[in-house]
Amino acid sequence: MSFAFEITHKAPDSYARLGRLTTPHGTIDTPNFIFCGTKASVKGLSPAQLRAEKVDIILSNTYHLMLSPGPDLIAEMGGLHKFMNWNGPMFTDSGGFQIFSLGYGSVADEIKGRGNRYRDKSILKITEEGAAFRSYLDGKKFFLTPESSIDIQRKLGADLIVQLDECTPFHVDKDYTARSMAMSMRWGDRSLAEWKKHDDGKQRMYGIVQGGVYPDLRKESCEWTRDRDFFATAIGGSLGSHKEQMYEVVAMCSPHIHPARPVHLLGIGTFIDVFSNVRSGIDTFDCVSPTRIARHGWAMVKGAPKERMNMRNAKFARDPDPVDPTCDCHACKNHSRSYIHHLFRVKEFLGMQLLSIHNVHTMTRLMREVRAAIGAGTLDALQKEWVV
Amino acid sequence: MSFAFEITHKAPDSYARLGRLTTPHGTIDTPNFIFCGTKASVKGLSPAQLRAEKVDIILSNTYHLMLSPGPDLIAEMGGLHKFMNWNGPMFTDSGGFQIFSLGYGSVADEIKGRGNRYRDKSILKITEEGAAFRSYLDGKKFFLTPESSIDIQRKLGADLIVQLDECTPFHVDKDYTARSMAMSMRWGDRSLAEWKKHDDGKQRMYGIVQGGVYPDLRKESCEWTRDRDFFATAIGGSLGSHKEQMYEVVAMCSPHIHPARPVHLLGIGTFIDVFSNVRSGIDTFDCVSPTRIARHGWAMVKGAPKERMNMRNAKFARDPDPVDPTCDCHACKNHSRSYIHHLFRVKEFLGMQLLSIHNVHTMTRLMREVRAAIGAGTLDALQKEWVV
Repeated sequence: MSFAFEITHKAPDSYARLGRLTTPHGTIDTPNFIFCGTKASVKGLSPAQLRAEKVDIILSNTYHLMLSPGPDLIAEMGGLHKFMNWNGPMFTDSGGFQIFSLGYGSVADEIKGRGNRYRDKSILKITEEGAAFRSYLDGKKFFLTPESSIDIQRKLGADLIVQLDECTPFHVDKDYTARSMAMSMRWGDRSLAEWKKHDDGKQRMYGIVQGGVYPDLRKESCEWTRDRDFFATAIGGSLGSHKEQMYEVVAMCSPHIHPARPVHLLGIGTFIDVFSNVRSGIDTFDCVSPTRIARHGWAMVKGAPKERMNMRNAKFARDPDPVDPTCDCHACKNHSRSYIHHLFRVKEFLGMQLLSIHNVHTMTRLMREVRAAIGAGTLDALQKEWVV
Repeated sequence: MSFAFEITHKAPDSYARLGRLTTPHGTIDTPNFIFCGTKASVKGLSPAQLRAEKVDIILSNTYHLMLSPGPDLIAEMGGLHKFMNWNGPMFTDSGGFQIFSLGYGSVADEIKGRGNRYRDKSILKITEEGAAFRSYLDGKKFFLTPESSIDIQRKLGADLIVQLDECTPFHVDKDYTARSMAMSMRWGDRSLAEWKKHDDGKQRMYGIVQGGVYPDLRKESCEWTRDRDFFATAIGGSLGSHKEQMYEVVAMCSPHIHPARPVHLLGIGTFIDVFSNVRSGIDTFDCVSPTRIARHGWAMVKGAPKERMNMRNAKFARDPDPVDPTCDCHACKNHSRSYIHHLFRVKEFLGMQLLSIHNVHTMTRLMREVRAAIGAGTLDALQKEWVV
């Protein structure tokens, strides 16, 4: 198999669409969700467990893997697919996002507009050439350039890779955002040039749309990616300070983005986010939240207030029902709320595993139902079932 | 199914034997290993994962479950089998062991003779009536008697239950040991009487052999259990200060223990311990070590020096082999030493899960091979393969 993206259906009333994204490691239906295996592991779950809950595609983070165990070791072990024994499609980011978010606050804070404007000491210097930073593990100095990011991603060997960009912070003005976007474009051209030098048909690259919350900058950035030889497009950077602004920012990209290429929205993934953004033509999402909130006792539940229920709540102590009676994940088919509540209460880490399974399954189920609803023209009705 | 124990083969040159132990939740071949699910969870593994690695029987600890979530809640949820969704044979201890070991040092220290003689404050008072202690969770006072232990175990609903005994510490003299043993006998009679009052055919009880390291006391205790209506016998108490003394203590029981009943050895379970003690007629073992050492990076490996390998060791960083190339557990079939080393290095808890799977599988494999070797008369040769 080589690479392809086929759009099989377009909604008449929005940019929503169905597609099939083919990579050398398999084909996935879109819209779909890319599960985060940050350090070559979706936290707490084996690849076999992911497959059992119908996960189609995962990602790993270049930043974490470049620090440990390092790209050369992974290459020596046969690449990331073999290293972690994931045989399906795989995505890696460029490493830039984590480096810059270290400088501005947490990753999630930043893209969601909650960042602060002060850089810490982990970023040593950002120049036209690239970004110098210190490892959070041992303080060792690293220098990430567009070329080295692509080199590392080639060694990791994921199917889908990403250009290096500067993740523009939220709390900067339009001039800063425009200058940052321009540097990301130059870094994008260097990333593409580096990739072309070694293209062996095994990897394809996403260009990244920047431009903050400014329609003219987003348009310019979309057109820049559209006119380059990227295989696909990712929407990155600051998406605003609240959900509505995020949806607006994504929507302002829709008319300008390359219509025939897959579109990924970086780091976003609640139920409502998925419904809102597939209407803007988003084909894939990724977010750490399904497994992260599971470790804190939260189950993602279709139709629940705020999309979730905390199994630590005392009201579940004697509840014999499954976490979600409408769910057929391994946890819901085999275990009760009462048991999972107990596991969290006595700090047995099986509780985290079971809720991680449930949340991952819930996201794969959401995406299946979203695809069916786009095909049937019933997305509004489905949204009312999932988001109350 | 009701309860039965059938001895299907006896070794000509030792007390080693093959058997079939039947409970209402199924029949297991013996010798076998009972995996510890202390708080209604074998740490890190789901019942489905246990079954996949051929686990036949598990135990939970009355002490932990009486404190949280409490026996009444578990009874309300349909009993321990249903609560944790384990449908096979199950064992609970009496709670006494943990209470007394809190007073003397760690559980493992105590039965292995490393305890200190100073009680801490968690035991408030031990009298003929029972033991008063404080919960390690919230300081709440509890009073455990033979009757309440059996009552709690009935509510938990395991197939195989255990009389309350005083777990005699190692660092006491023979007189203390004899007096403690005598109290355990009286507690055993009270446990039996309480059990008979409510016997509905769903549970059977183990009597416990005490007597420290003293042959005459062990003989007396064996004869006491033999002459009572216990279904089975467990060897408990202090087993000496080193492995050889432990094997001697167990061996001194063999001629005196009821020959037709299943014999359990409490809290013991390395490879060498299994080989040594099956020759004394032990039918079942239990030990937390397979999952406990897994969480610290240790893989139990047939034929390895000291029976184990630490996957944190840097020499495994680039090792593409499975943990044990001769093992067909889920971890060894799917993942490399290099990957598991990485998971521990970056603190991904999938590493603990994979090694727990491996260690559990290794123990079920050991027991299968031991049974085959007892049948074939090749136990000495098998021991040389496992223990170097």
